Amino acid sequence: MYNVKVYVTYKKSILDPQGEAIKTALHRMEHQDVMQVTVGKYFEMQIKDNGQNIDEQVNKMCDELLANVNMETYRYEITEAAKVEE
Amino acid sequence: MYNVKVYVTYKKSILDPQGEAIKTALHRMEHQDVMQVTVGKYFEMQIKDNGQNIDEQVNKMCDELLANVNMETYRYEITEAAKVEE
Repeated sequence: MYNVKVYVTYKKSILDPQGEAIKTALHRMEHQDVMQVTVGKYFEMQIKDNGQNIDEQVNKMCDELLANVNMETYRYEITEAAKVEE
Repeated sequence: MYNVKVYVTYKKSILDPQGEAIKTALHRMEHQDVMQVTVGKYFEMQIKDNGQNIDEQVNKMCDELLANVNMETYRYEITEAAKVEE
């Protein structure tokens, strides 16, 4: 079993109005030292080891569903979950 | 300057329909080995070092704005950004 964490954020070239709005709100809450805020999506997935290349599978899931590759970029972390006695 | 990454996800007790919907979609895309999907929010922030305790500041930002503490839980990572010569 694999534990996969995926982080999806806007590409640098894309305006992030949500991030700007949150930064403004934080400033109003006396957190003036917040210089920049980027907002993104975060996925945690558990994937059974089926013998296929896990990186290829995760890349496919991101390219086809989890991220809009025209506007977003993604990175992920894969860790092997402890073997569960079946 | 601090680089702060915040991960906000639903509490275990809260139903995650979005996660279920994504799992179903992944199964339809022949990724049947995806056992579980959790969806959350991800924030990257740059915060100037103002001498105050950074953990306290980030906790306050999360409790008051970034997370709905009734339904969500959060964790964060703080790293010191390289000093910029001013």
